[in-house]
Amino acid sequence: MRNFPFLRACRREPVNRTPVWMMRQAGRYLPEYRAIRARNDFLTMCKTPELASEVSLQPVEILGVDACIIFSDILVLPEAMGMNLVVEEGTGGPRFTDPIRSRADIDRLGIPDPSTELKFVLDAVRLTRQRLDGTVPLIGFSGSPWTLASYMVEGSGSKTFRTIKEMVYAHPQDLHHLLEKLAQAGARYLNAVIEAGAQAIQIFDSWGGILPPDEFREFSLRSIAHMMSLVRKEGTPVIVFCRECGHSLEQIADTGTDVVGIDWTIDLRSAKDRIGSHTALQGNLDPAILYSSPDVIRSHVIRILEKFGPAPGHVFNLGHGILPDTPVEHAKAFVQAVKEESPRFHRVQAT
Amino acid sequence: MRNFPFLRACRREPVNRTPVWMMRQAGRYLPEYRAIRARNDFLTMCKTPELASEVSLQPVEILGVDACIIFSDILVLPEAMGMNLVVEEGTGGPRFTDPIRSRADIDRLGIPDPSTELKFVLDAVRLTRQRLDGTVPLIGFSGSPWTLASYMVEGSGSKTFRTIKEMVYAHPQDLHHLLEKLAQAGARYLNAVIEAGAQAIQIFDSWGGILPPDEFREFSLRSIAHMMSLVRKEGTPVIVFCRECGHSLEQIADTGTDVVGIDWTIDLRSAKDRIGSHTALQGNLDPAILYSSPDVIRSHVIRILEKFGPAPGHVFNLGHGILPDTPVEHAKAFVQAVKEESPRFHRVQAT
Repeated sequence: MRNFPFLRACRREPVNRTPVWMMRQAGRYLPEYRAIRARNDFLTMCKTPELASEVSLQPVEILGVDACIIFSDILVLPEAMGMNLVVEEGTGGPRFTDPIRSRADIDRLGIPDPSTELKFVLDAVRLTRQRLDGTVPLIGFSGSPWTLASYMVEGSGSKTFRTIKEMVYAHPQDLHHLLEKLAQAGARYLNAVIEAGAQAIQIFDSWGGILPPDEFREFSLRSIAHMMSLVRKEGTPVIVFCRECGHSLEQIADTGTDVVGIDWTIDLRSAKDRIGSHTALQGNLDPAILYSSPDVIRSHVIRILEKFGPAPGHVFNLGHGILPDTPVEHAKAFVQAVKEESPRFHRVQAT
Repeated sequence: MRNFPFLRACRREPVNRTPVWMMRQAGRYLPEYRAIRARNDFLTMCKTPELASEVSLQPVEILGVDACIIFSDILVLPEAMGMNLVVEEGTGGPRFTDPIRSRADIDRLGIPDPSTELKFVLDAVRLTRQRLDGTVPLIGFSGSPWTLASYMVEGSGSKTFRTIKEMVYAHPQDLHHLLEKLAQAGARYLNAVIEAGAQAIQIFDSWGGILPPDEFREFSLRSIAHMMSLVRKEGTPVIVFCRECGHSLEQIADTGTDVVGIDWTIDLRSAKDRIGSHTALQGNLDPAILYSSPDVIRSHVIRILEKFGPAPGHVFNLGHGILPDTPVEHAKAFVQAVKEESPRFHRVQAT
């Protein structure tokens, strides 16, 4: 198991080629995913281990990516804490019907026991790990406390994030109380996911970028570091991906994460110069490049390999989730290009 | 005229207090604006000098800001180049009915003569300048070539900007051709706006942040620099505001702009360390802070004044446009706090 290139790269150990996977790789751009989705609503897929496992495995089989990420949603954790989650068909997206609006709402939230209240995730992890049968490692994930709190307070995604930002600026103590609870619940959840068989963990801070740098560090990073301190990692690499937070790469690395996810708004060479000497990096092809053509995709893959240069510690990925209308052939061309173009960067390093 | 604190700060000359204005200060948060808007559609307001002038003056009279920005829309320029602009009431926002999809579409675009085809803007500038009667200076503005191109190719704002990004990655030569034309049209427009009486110019690059750093520099910054090289400034300060482009502050400063607009995703102290020795900075309070309370607003104003420190070259502003549901009393409290708290930072500097 320690020889998977993905896990080796997370630990900044030498590899023969750069491992590659894609955020949201189990998703709508795949006809095989859409076929299952057509017969099941989104939450049913999350909560049926057989289905979650099946769509998790699709990109491994179809594209040949070097890691499998379990199909799930970050919002199943707040749901298990007592919030009412609905996913409306069509344009809706996930939504909490009773967003958090008071200290009492926060106090009512429970710390769920994953072995019962989130058993469906653990079963999906166990089943997927078994079906992978050692081909590629399995990644589990959680939202960051801040990102979960944003959804729980706003009720859904938002354009201005008015309500959570009012909490940041006018009621910071209540927010810290909520984040503390989420760090505890998140750590307990991640520990169970690791125990069920996840071989790496990614923490998604999708809404870190809606905060100015000082507030990002106070409300998001501090709670991520707290959550990570409660995770019994025992060698399981952790990837922290904060979207649009290029201003704080050094501080993200300082949380003690093994890998920092780099989105496409950051130059990978500059990220490597800033934090590459003590942490691995994951990223960062603009997913919109997958709209272009196999030749253009390959040229951008080479550019990113050159930016990182001949050194250990790079997990190739998109700089954000794959877009739902991406042509599958272009996703395949991306994975193929990384596999074919990256070995020479590692040979250089070995000499 | 050279003694307006706003213009002095743009030129990094000493001032007695930090000047302040707000992006989108002539807007929906003001009941006086909504009263006029209720009787007129958005484009009618842009195209009726009397109305445009009236709403431009409102924030000067109501809030006491240190600069007036002419009420207009960046999309009137592409409209004058031959595109069909509509603004749908309700959620719609401005939209081009026939977005650019081919080289032939680009070739059909004209370079408008502002004195006839954009006369309504010039008349509004002349009228507003006259009515201001030397109280505060008047700012004119334009979109950056890249931001205008994004709207013209997508037809409107977008979540993924798929079409313009396909152009970036698959048809860069066509895009450069379009940007070249926009730089020429934009410079001709800005020259006319300056001649009509604008005492400073802001270039809005609202969509610079949808590009990775290399592409931002190639497609947005290069065309901004080209446009600026064609503007006959003759002492008129230029402010370049690229939203979510903190990765490239040095390169933005290198365009030769007098002032770099800093959005709220960037720490102002770090911005000053990076480029403050040779350019003025404008910004950068998170507009969401205006939701909180006068006390909280004041504490954040002080924090930003401290981050910039006792030096010339700071124009206080929000780090993005004021949000439409901001309480007017909070906007007033913001302006007041800057006026009351900033003098001591300039006294320190004078000793």
